[in-house]
Amino acid sequence: MSESKKLLRGRFRKDAARLVKQFTASVDYDRRLYRQDIAGSITHARMLAKQGIITDEEAETITTGLVAIREEIEHGLLEFDSELEDIHMNIEARLAGKIGDVAGKLHTARSRNDQVALDIRLYMKDAISSALHRLRELQTVLVDLAESNREVVMPGYTHLQRAQPVMFAHHLLAYFEMLERDIGRFLDCLKRTDVLPLGSGALAGVPYPVDRTFLAQELGFGHISQNSMDAVSDRDFVVEYQAVTCIVMMHLSRLAEELILWSSAEFAFVEMNDAYATGSSIMPQKKNPDVAELVRGKTGRVYGNLMGILTVMKGLPLTYNRDLQEDKEGFFDTVDTLAVVLDVFNGMLRTMRVFPDRAEQAAKESYALATDFADYLVRKGLPFRQAYTIVGGLVDHAMAEGLGLDEIDISTLRSFSPLFEEDIRRIDTMASVNARNCIGGTASEQVAAQLVRARDIIEGGYVD
Amino acid sequence: MSESKKLLRGRFRKDAARLVKQFTASVDYDRRLYRQDIAGSITHARMLAKQGIITDEEAETITTGLVAIREEIEHGLLEFDSELEDIHMNIEARLAGKIGDVAGKLHTARSRNDQVALDIRLYMKDAISSALHRLRELQTVLVDLAESNREVVMPGYTHLQRAQPVMFAHHLLAYFEMLERDIGRFLDCLKRTDVLPLGSGALAGVPYPVDRTFLAQELGFGHISQNSMDAVSDRDFVVEYQAVTCIVMMHLSRLAEELILWSSAEFAFVEMNDAYATGSSIMPQKKNPDVAELVRGKTGRVYGNLMGILTVMKGLPLTYNRDLQEDKEGFFDTVDTLAVVLDVFNGMLRTMRVFPDRAEQAAKESYALATDFADYLVRKGLPFRQAYTIVGGLVDHAMAEGLGLDEIDISTLRSFSPLFEEDIRRIDTMASVNARNCIGGTASEQVAAQLVRARDIIEGGYVD
Amino acid sequence: MSESKKLLRGRFRKDAARLVKQFTASVDYDRRLYRQDIAGSITHARMLAKQGIITDEEAETITTGLVAIREEIEHGLLEFDSELEDIHMNIEARLAGKIGDVAGKLHTARSRNDQVALDIRLYMKDAISSALHRLRELQTVLVDLAESNREVVMPGYTHLQRAQPVMFAHHLLAYFEMLERDIGRFLDCLKRTDVLPLGSGALAGVPYPVDRTFLAQELGFGHISQNSMDAVSDRDFVVEYQAVTCIVMMHLSRLAEELILWSSAEFAFVEMNDAYATGSSIMPQKKNPDVAELVRGKTGRVYGNLMGILTVMKGLPLTYNRDLQEDKEGFFDTVDTLAVVLDVFNGMLRTMRVFPDRAEQAAKESYALATDFADYLVRKGLPFRQAYTIVGGLVDHAMAEGLGLDEIDISTLRSFSPLFEEDIRRIDTMASVNARNCIGGTASEQVAAQLVRARDIIEGGYVD
Amino acid sequence: MSESKKLLRGRFRKDAARLVKQFTASVDYDRRLYRQDIAGSITHARMLAKQGIITDEEAETITTGLVAIREEIEHGLLEFDSELEDIHMNIEARLAGKIGDVAGKLHTARSRNDQVALDIRLYMKDAISSALHRLRELQTVLVDLAESNREVVMPGYTHLQRAQPVMFAHHLLAYFEMLERDIGRFLDCLKRTDVLPLGSGALAGVPYPVDRTFLAQELGFGHISQNSMDAVSDRDFVVEYQAVTCIVMMHLSRLAEELILWSSAEFAFVEMNDAYATGSSIMPQKKNPDVAELVRGKTGRVYGNLMGILTVMKGLPLTYNRDLQEDKEGFFDTVDTLAVVLDVFNGMLRTMRVFPDRAEQAAKESYALATDFADYLVRKGLPFRQAYTIVGGLVDHAMAEGLGLDEIDISTLRSFSPLFEEDIRRIDTMASVNARNCIGGTASEQVAAQLVRARDIIEGGYVD
Repeated sequence: MSESKKLLRGRFRKDAARLVKQFTASVDYDRRLYRQDIAGSITHARMLAKQGIITDEEAETITTGLVAIREEIEHGLLEFDSELEDIHMNIEARLAGKIGDVAGKLHTARSRNDQVALDIRLYMKDAISSALHRLRELQTVLVDLAESNREVVMPGYTHLQRAQPVMFAHHLLAYFEMLERDIGRFLDCLKRTDVLPLGSGALAGVPYPVDRTFLAQELGFGHISQNSMDAVSDRDFVVEYQAVTCIVMMHLSRLAEELILWSSAEFAFVEMNDAYATGSSIMPQKKNPDVAELVRGKTGRVYGNLMGILTVMKGLPLTYNRDLQEDKEGFFDTVDTLAVVLDVFNGMLRTMRVFPDRAEQAAKESYALATDFADYLVRKGLPFRQAYTIVGGLVDHAMAEGLGLDEIDISTLRSFSPLFEEDIRRIDTMASVNARNCIGGTASEQVAAQLVRARDIIEGGYVD
Repeated sequence: MSESKKLLRGRFRKDAARLVKQFTASVDYDRRLYRQDIAGSITHARMLAKQGIITDEEAETITTGLVAIREEIEHGLLEFDSELEDIHMNIEARLAGKIGDVAGKLHTARSRNDQVALDIRLYMKDAISSALHRLRELQTVLVDLAESNREVVMPGYTHLQRAQPVMFAHHLLAYFEMLERDIGRFLDCLKRTDVLPLGSGALAGVPYPVDRTFLAQELGFGHISQNSMDAVSDRDFVVEYQAVTCIVMMHLSRLAEELILWSSAEFAFVEMNDAYATGSSIMPQKKNPDVAELVRGKTGRVYGNLMGILTVMKGLPLTYNRDLQEDKEGFFDTVDTLAVVLDVFNGMLRTMRVFPDRAEQAAKESYALATDFADYLVRKGLPFRQAYTIVGGLVDHAMAEGLGLDEIDISTLRSFSPLFEEDIRRIDTMASVNARNCIGGTASEQVAAQLVRARDIIEGGYVD
Repeated sequence: MSESKKLLRGRFRKDAARLVKQFTASVDYDRRLYRQDIAGSITHARMLAKQGIITDEEAETITTGLVAIREEIEHGLLEFDSELEDIHMNIEARLAGKIGDVAGKLHTARSRNDQVALDIRLYMKDAISSALHRLRELQTVLVDLAESNREVVMPGYTHLQRAQPVMFAHHLLAYFEMLERDIGRFLDCLKRTDVLPLGSGALAGVPYPVDRTFLAQELGFGHISQNSMDAVSDRDFVVEYQAVTCIVMMHLSRLAEELILWSSAEFAFVEMNDAYATGSSIMPQKKNPDVAELVRGKTGRVYGNLMGILTVMKGLPLTYNRDLQEDKEGFFDTVDTLAVVLDVFNGMLRTMRVFPDRAEQAAKESYALATDFADYLVRKGLPFRQAYTIVGGLVDHAMAEGLGLDEIDISTLRSFSPLFEEDIRRIDTMASVNARNCIGGTASEQVAAQLVRARDIIEGGYVD
Repeated sequence: MSESKKLLRGRFRKDAARLVKQFTASVDYDRRLYRQDIAGSITHARMLAKQGIITDEEAETITTGLVAIREEIEHGLLEFDSELEDIHMNIEARLAGKIGDVAGKLHTARSRNDQVALDIRLYMKDAISSALHRLRELQTVLVDLAESNREVVMPGYTHLQRAQPVMFAHHLLAYFEMLERDIGRFLDCLKRTDVLPLGSGALAGVPYPVDRTFLAQELGFGHISQNSMDAVSDRDFVVEYQAVTCIVMMHLSRLAEELILWSSAEFAFVEMNDAYATGSSIMPQKKNPDVAELVRGKTGRVYGNLMGILTVMKGLPLTYNRDLQEDKEGFFDTVDTLAVVLDVFNGMLRTMRVFPDRAEQAAKESYALATDFADYLVRKGLPFRQAYTIVGGLVDHAMAEGLGLDEIDISTLRSFSPLFEEDIRRIDTMASVNARNCIGGTASEQVAAQLVRARDIIEGGYVD
């Protein structure tokens, strides 16, 4: 063995304790649970006193100590020590330093296993509330943008090919619907998060006459966990939160993709506000939709976080295993990503400039009315499939001649089908749009109704 | 260019059409949507007639034709043709062959985009019902198994280390809780699946006076999509189904892992029935828990299917893109996997032999009562943290002496803490278990109550 | 318990054996390993005879039987039986049926664990060869396309914004480079696949004087596994194959995205051949780049397969566990997907029509020469950052005036910087392109050199 | 609109610029590239001078400034400003502050796109070197541990059922093989990372007579990128690094799983050193293998990072898109995770206590010699399949009688097969082990040879 290797091993041995501490410590990231942890501990102490497990004075001493520690943390006065591993032990140690042995009574009828489950659930309930609020905000922006561009027509696309003209507002409201489902999923996730695990102990419950109903009420939980072994090993709510957020990000990645397309010189339907675009380090003419690109890119991170927690949980025997510590960083990252992504999207849309003329021109210069021509023939009695074939030939002809469908003279039209008459001229972009006047269709009347419905939903709050 | 390369290119060119057909065709797997497709078409035809868009006779002709085609398919008489790409075109072509031009009228006011969205939603509603049924069945097996092993005690584990004794029934009921959440998630997913997309056309709605409410009622949908562009490009429900199933599989992988551990010679708490175990091709003594292993392994496939559809959807512009065709194979695979996995798990648990003596002995021979000793001291007035330290020393002493905690004489106990008295002898495995008598705790009384609750839930059906 | 439930349970019990067989059977998909399995068995029999473990006659009888079975399979005459679980047992049973007890000697010194590992490795070696061939073919198409469009200029994009003009051939050659790395990764994966596992037995090696070197030579392996426990539980090569293919698909998804963009009315740089595009069921004017979309979509499936096998392998103890059976379906799916995707991409590119005028016009009408203007000032002595700022102002001015950079008169230019002189007129699209004349740059001279290099690589075969 | 909402929107507007800056800034994490960035810039400046693009004095001034900035950073004296977005602009701005306008010349013939690609490649080359070193270290630990437990026998497992006895050293060496493949994969990844992108400019190359060969030599690159558009948009090497690390983590998760099993009371083959285990907050007797559990858990994070970057890259058009910024955080996280995981694993194994008696007893008390009994009959002339059946019956008999195979008397044995003779007694655990004396088998002789080979590999360094 070479000298350098020997030295290296020496280093490993000497540093082992420190290295392991650093490896297993979580206080660097779980410190953000301090408010939840202290709130949980105060309530626990009050419950212990109420049940006569500790005295009222003891509870009072503990509470005062904890409140003071919260102050210290919020003023940056508490130095977190990774030797003490996590936020729970940091606070407990500080409490012991402040109030002495009575601090040790706080851990009666409680384990870190149910304590940490409590803290994450409390934190997640806040995170969901915040997500719901931001999703509603983004819906509001979409509706505002739709309303202020009520008259704008654009090509609707399938396969990124111009298909049929649609109202720009209709296009935007598609995203309103997606976000509404996202809100529904978060609300459903909230139901399953809103369950008090405290009182489950390490895994088997606690051998004290605790009052879990009191704990739930004081901490604002709607339900109480019914199986202690499940309660300390359950991270379903984290997985579900990650999955729900993946779908949100998937939606935003789609809108981001569209904004990037629309910002290109080729589409040129919109322009990002300078605050939401950046220049190039080398190309002075560039105005890049960086914010939209970055939102699209951040989809990867959130997908990865979901895959991460699913992998962590796979094949773990009951109950608590240290692997579960890996639930938090990915979760916090997703919470932060979602918050900032929704905020920047909000501002980006709100300040985006729309070019109605470009959008309308694109709608007109394509053959997007071909389906309407076919439907015209259907209304004159042809089966759709035959009408479709005839208009297909017509489009081929028009393309070859370099004409728009509206530029073909009637006699030519009639050579394709005698059913064509003068009234075919009534079919234009707006006629096409307004013909689609069924529920959910792009007709102005329908879009107007949907705008009203959207406002109602936004104002009505969350109904499950 | 070499001769062989030239030949190769020739091959490519000649086969291009066939290759592309094969590449884009989906009838090999989407044929399983035939019932949904035909049901949707019949209802669509009836609606068209009701609204005067086609005549009653036309609708009747179409319906009769479709019913006959369904018969043909169910008797294996219809040869699917991948030249016709998908199940929809196969049925449409067969209909044209049967009833002639009038078949072409079926495609009035409908596009493949809303048609396929309808079919998958109808299929998924059935898939969810079936999953719910099977999950309830598995819950029933867990409860039956718990009841028939009511008296069995085993070590509860954290970190795969024996921690505190628990009731075997309590351990099983932890999985009851997980499955109950899974049921909740499927019900929530069902709400968002239960939305009629038909009437959305290709993307913009349809230019006919369709009655979407009628369609929804006839096809059993509770809701109608409100935005046509969203309706044809939305696959949220597929992603959500995949995510929900991932969590189910995660739960089952955990139970599978435990069954594999428990089947080992080292644990030997259970033995799989011969039907659920297999031998080795080379080792005559082996009895392997293959079914449990395979369930654990199949978790990977379902995680993969989720990641697949999330990737497909990322960054797609509205509305329909051909990428969406990739929604189905992974979905069908997950549906099939979930069904068979739940069925085999059911039988595996139902026929599994439990060895109560081994489980109980394991619970007893560890130091799993240490927490109870600490709690004993707490009840005599010590703060928990001090009690914990004292018992920690006691355990070290006992291990060094090779004694169980119950084998240390009183005077030795008192040398660790004078608070120890004769009544410490009352702490044994069952006393430990029954001390945890709070909601969700492992005490026999609590477990009995949970068994009653579980039966109530099972009998009560699904309440959201 | 209700009657229907009782019935249901009856069904479960009665069908248990069948259900489990179906659940654990793999012959439906592992039958495609029949050639590998038979080749391995024949070589194994010959080795056993060579080592005197069986007689030469026995080996001969076994070989003749296996050759006949291969014939049967290839002529569709062997009915696979899922009761016999997998391809290995199906062949073994058929062999016993054909040649009697001597068939049982084939399993001497071999287990299914090393047998299946052998079969997959043999299969994968073929799959990699095939992938390498197809990747080279696709590189050839790219080079052909580049050469036949040597003069075409287009906008180079960053952030989907026009940035600087580039040669179309240069753009295509970027994908040549990606595929070249993919080839390198497959070759590296091949090294680690090219290892004979046979002779590892169930897990511990075999108690017979086998000649593994002989086996390796006869079966064409370059290496012999060095640890039997690793050999039967190693699926690294499957994971690596999946990961390598994910990167290929990622590359193809990028090119597919570009082809979809370029096929849009907005870009209109290319048009897919009719064979590689499809129409709409409802919109007669549509020509959708379905093949490119589907390739992009199939990226999801391959990503999912990678995640699947990674999940399967996570946390499995040594050695063989039944979970490993899940290595195959995802692998076969990826093999098939890669093959067809490369084939259709090949044909799609080969038949694609390019519109040089549209591409060139797009390159010209943007401000893509702005960097060249800045570089002009740099060459006159300004630090780049100052030049950048001046040209930024110039672009703003030009946009406001609706002018191209080449349309601003000299005096105006000089009002931005006195360094501008008449020679600024020499900067045009081709000058910009040809100025980038460093290795890897877009100058015609460089691109020509790269085309030569690309041909050399293609002709030179695979050098690691 | 409510007042609170108005306020909220006000907040958004006012903070938009700040929020976007924060959203797009990367200096918080890419600051760790400062050494690479400065090294790249110094070399770039020297090349510019060498080529006469800037003067020698300018290059000298720039270099001196950059060296000073590196000093400042390393002494914590440079405050990073997220307004300046990334590490590159922070350094450039600081340079301008220090040396004035000449700093602007550094950006000649370079863009942030090729600059950032350079920095990550330099960083990754270091990261791979470090990973290789640590993997070799861990191999050394495995070999040391194997050697110091040369005589230890244990049960080999398949399906977590005892299968055949193996040497403990043999089991450990299986992981040596896995790590050796990991090293091979990192070396292969290194080849593709070792490519200089500088000189690619923003996307099209640079319009200056740069000397890329000089740059490559000075910066230690073996290759030069051959296509500028590929070079700025290629992140294959990041994906490949992530994939390679996933496989490492997969391997470690398997060993971690085994260590956790072996640390359980049920197996009790090993005990973690106190430094690598932790206690419980509530159960004084617990000694949990937390480090092993956490390693297993961290597999999820690394899998997630792979999935993240694959998702980011999917479907991105050329060339640079802002999405690519998301390549770094996941990459850094994986680099850090791998480093610490390998370090703690090293120490954990090195300090782990092995209980040879427990392992040996487990090997003996099972029916792990059954295969040897069958092989005994084969050597007496029976086909393996018949021998297998006979021994299967024998095992059933022994189990029913509660006997070990070695406890059945000869006459009983002979009633199963007359081929059994007295020499059957020679089959014991060590005889079974040593019978597997083929390459890669568990026989002591083979294991000894593998230990020598392993040492040779370790001492021999990395040969590709």
